[in-house]
Amino acid sequence: MELLKTPIMPQGFQCTSRFCGLKKRRKDLAVFYSEVTAPAAGVFTKNKFPGIPVILGREIIKKGLLRAIVVNSKISNVGTGEQGLENARRMALAMAKEFNIPQEQVLMGSTGIIAKQLPIKLIEAGIQGISGQLGNDPLEGAKGIMTTDTHPKALSVAVDKAVITLVAKGAGMIEPNMATMLVYIFTDAQIANPDLDRILREAAADSFNMLSVDSDTSTSDSCIIMANGLAGAIPLAQFSEALKFGCVEMAKILARDGEGATKLLLAHVLGANTKTEARIIAKSLVNSPLIKTMAYGADPNIGRVLMAVGKCIECEIIPERLEIHINGQLVFAHSRKAAFDELAVRHLLAGDPVEIIVNLNVGTQEAVAYGCDLTEGYIVENAAYYST
Amino acid sequence: MELLKTPIMPQGFQCTSRFCGLKKRRKDLAVFYSEVTAPAAGVFTKNKFPGIPVILGREIIKKGLLRAIVVNSKISNVGTGEQGLENARRMALAMAKEFNIPQEQVLMGSTGIIAKQLPIKLIEAGIQGISGQLGNDPLEGAKGIMTTDTHPKALSVAVDKAVITLVAKGAGMIEPNMATMLVYIFTDAQIANPDLDRILREAAADSFNMLSVDSDTSTSDSCIIMANGLAGAIPLAQFSEALKFGCVEMAKILARDGEGATKLLLAHVLGANTKTEARIIAKSLVNSPLIKTMAYGADPNIGRVLMAVGKCIECEIIPERLEIHINGQLVFAHSRKAAFDELAVRHLLAGDPVEIIVNLNVGTQEAVAYGCDLTEGYIVENAAYYST
Repeated sequence: MELLKTPIMPQGFQCTSRFCGLKKRRKDLAVFYSEVTAPAAGVFTKNKFPGIPVILGREIIKKGLLRAIVVNSKISNVGTGEQGLENARRMALAMAKEFNIPQEQVLMGSTGIIAKQLPIKLIEAGIQGISGQLGNDPLEGAKGIMTTDTHPKALSVAVDKAVITLVAKGAGMIEPNMATMLVYIFTDAQIANPDLDRILREAAADSFNMLSVDSDTSTSDSCIIMANGLAGAIPLAQFSEALKFGCVEMAKILARDGEGATKLLLAHVLGANTKTEARIIAKSLVNSPLIKTMAYGADPNIGRVLMAVGKCIECEIIPERLEIHINGQLVFAHSRKAAFDELAVRHLLAGDPVEIIVNLNVGTQEAVAYGCDLTEGYIVENAAYYST
Repeated sequence: MELLKTPIMPQGFQCTSRFCGLKKRRKDLAVFYSEVTAPAAGVFTKNKFPGIPVILGREIIKKGLLRAIVVNSKISNVGTGEQGLENARRMALAMAKEFNIPQEQVLMGSTGIIAKQLPIKLIEAGIQGISGQLGNDPLEGAKGIMTTDTHPKALSVAVDKAVITLVAKGAGMIEPNMATMLVYIFTDAQIANPDLDRILREAAADSFNMLSVDSDTSTSDSCIIMANGLAGAIPLAQFSEALKFGCVEMAKILARDGEGATKLLLAHVLGANTKTEARIIAKSLVNSPLIKTMAYGADPNIGRVLMAVGKCIECEIIPERLEIHINGQLVFAHSRKAAFDELAVRHLLAGDPVEIIVNLNVGTQEAVAYGCDLTEGYIVENAAYYST
């Protein structure tokens, strides 16, 4: 298993993106295509106001087969009623015509402003002729799905004779309860359902579901995998490990590019009574505005760590057993602050990433959560964001 | 029932505050005193790392009688082990000597930096002679308990022949699961336990427990009431209503003074299936960074409201029934954006308070949550805050 220096679409997959007139200038339409029908699986937002592409996507993915994915950015097709449904179906139909594939094997995605109708004619015109433009660079596909991202996001992991490639977007409104961003995963490994579905859920649980930029859960976001099998079968365990590795790496990339973020924030909780409790506490740490501003301000504020752990009132915590490390330095144990060089820890905290390790010493379970610091940049970006 | 123009300590109560050397210049020690023994009740943080004053306070309040409260600001006495316990007891002992009252009828409070020992000698010296300085202005008491507050906080409600006065502090690390700030309530109404305890809990549930500045739950904070009875008995229902009114008014004052805040943010959820679900959704709205920055940026972003309601996945929500009003203007109904004058709504949102009303139309329960906008000021204040 190895992270490739330059990401590439696995064999049989191609992609591209285009400007079709939704944004002012930048690319706003992406397509991903497999030359053969691929077993597919997906996880979607748990938000009670799912977008139209999520509502339809759940139906499409049930059949377990995909040929292509089409995604527009700038407008999300959420809260758009009957017309939104029709527009999403027209997107799939345009793809089916352009690529001469079954409409029910096209998955749609939309991301951006909520409660605004898609300019479907612009999208249909954009899809026309796009099949002649396909290439092997996943970063090209990533460009068309960006919203507030500062850079396109893709990575490839080589595993056995196969490749797993992740293309993603996401910088705000990111919190778990699914893979809360758009992540499209392509592999030429031959993995059938229900294995594909199970392995994707397991990988998402420890990566995208442990990622939070701002504790806000999007209405749209989705994580989809297509496995076209062109590289043949590889051992399931090996595939599963590589997929999880790729998802964790992508979660870190997404966290570090959080709106206004200057650094990655990692919270590693050890010695928890249950996996669920380890996850709750790790998430509490990366979600706390006071921890996030502390990472930004580079101050080893132990009180804030105690607070963010202690507010998980449903978890088993024995205050006397708690140990806290910040970037490798023990800062709290035996109910009191440890002796350490404050200036040295401030120096460590000023770097990237900031890693907080909390050992509860009450059990054997652990979890890692991925987040980012909170800066004036988040405020400026979100206070200035106009919804119309 | 009437809010007094100028707050005043009820008869038989006095207070003052002093500078004793914990802060650089400002007052850092406050005392509140009743000339007769008063029935008392309290609610405390649910954080698993409670401060020493909370640990001891729970024991003291069990006996249901208080004569005085002593509070220092700047250092919180949390995560301080055995020495912290001894220091808190020495604070009470110094008060008992100074006022010639039983030590077990003195409640202690501390607020500020965590995991640092109290300079107890400075506090003991500060208590000496303070009984000669008492007065009737609750704002004087409020000054000594301020941390990042921009102004001292007190209010008085007249009810029947009695007065209820609230003195409070709190600007950050404020989220429910108790009264998560310091609130001291004094009344000359004659209310015995267990009524006093029950009425306090009911009032806190709809006010301080519905208040959130940053979703972070403090380790220290407490809400205490003393009822010395000097005004005689008044009808319980009337007292209860007045206390709740006073607590809601104080919750609004605390929210509006949230760290970096420029305005009050109110979320009113109607038509919920249960009271608990109404509270969860109202809290989700005031806690969402994207709603908070929207209040700051004055943009009627309906998508963010849908998102913050929809992420309450444990609540009964039927998307088609949802209605949203922002500052009196219907903005969403029947699964789609309503027709409204965007500029007019932006103008309303630019004011203070911002009020979001969400009618779920699935039941009859409702709740209101109190919060504030999120601005660069919060980041600057908390990134620059040094814990030592």
